[in-house]
Amino acid sequence: MNPGRCAACRYLRRKCPPDCIFSPYFPPNVPQRFVSVHRIYGASNVAKLLQQLPSHLRAEAAESLCMEVQYRIEDPVYGCVGLISSLQQQIHDAEKQLAKTQAEIAFLKSHAQHSQVALLDDAANLGFSNHQGSSGFM
Amino acid sequence: MNPGRCAACRYLRRKCPPDCIFSPYFPPNVPQRFVSVHRIYGASNVAKLLQQLPSHLRAEAAESLCMEVQYRIEDPVYGCVGLISSLQQQIHDAEKQLAKTQAEIAFLKSHAQHSQVALLDDAANLGFSNHQGSSGFM
Repeated sequence: MNPGRCAACRYLRRKCPPDCIFSPYFPPNVPQRFVSVHRIYGASNVAKLLQQLPSHLRAEAAESLCMEVQYRIEDPVYGCVGLISSLQQQIHDAEKQLAKTQAEIAFLKSHAQHSQVALLDDAANLGFSNHQGSSGFM
Repeated sequence: MNPGRCAACRYLRRKCPPDCIFSPYFPPNVPQRFVSVHRIYGASNVAKLLQQLPSHLRAEAAESLCMEVQYRIEDPVYGCVGLISSLQQQIHDAEKQLAKTQAEIAFLKSHAQHSQVALLDDAANLGFSNHQGSSGFM
C-alpha cells in the first residue's frame, strides 16, 4: 500500500498520479469524505465537476459537493433542498414577526403621542382653571 | 422511435421497460430535466438513489435532485450550498433587525411610562396648587 495515495485513489485501488484531480481535496486521513461523494455522485462525475473549474475554485467546489452529499445521506428524499425549504420558512416567519413588531412600534408611537396630548390637555385645563381661579380673586 | 418512452430511455437510447425507474418522474415532454440530472449525477446514480426509496417518496426525491442539479448548473462552485449560505445570512440579518426592533419597543414602552408618570405628576401638582388656591379663598 502506498501511504502517499489520496483517499480517492486508495478507495479506487489505483495509483495516485502527481496531477490527481482528487488528491488536494480528498486527503488520505479523511477517507469517509471521498466514500460519501463517490456513493452519491460517483467518482467520475466528481472528477468531471472539478476538472471543468479553474483550479483555484476546486477546493470550494469539493467542499460544497461534500456538504450536499452529507445532506443527501441524512435526508435521501429532500437532501439540501429540505434545508432550503426550512430556511425559507424561517425567513418567512421572521419577516412576519418583524412586520408585527414594526406595527407594534407604530402603534406605541402613535399611542404615546395621543396619551401625551391628552395628558397635556388635562394639565392645561387644570392650569387654566387655576389661573382663572387666581385672577378671579385678585 | 417509440413515442411512449420516458425522457431517460429516449436519451439513453434504450427500450423503456414497464417498470422503468425513471419513467414516472422524467416524462418525454420535459427532456431537459433528465439531461440535467444525468449530466451532474449520472443516470445510474439517479436510478440507485430512487430505487433505495419507497415508491411513494420517489417523486419528491426526483424533484429535489432536479432542483439540486439546477443550482449546481447555475453555480458550479457552490451549487445549492451557495443558496443555503445566502439564506442563513438573511436569517442572521433578520434576527439582528428583530432584536433591534424589539429593543426599540422596550425603550418606547419604558419611555411612554416615564412620560406619563411625569405628566401625571405635573398635572397632580397643578391640581394640588389649584385646590390650595381655591381653598385659600373659600
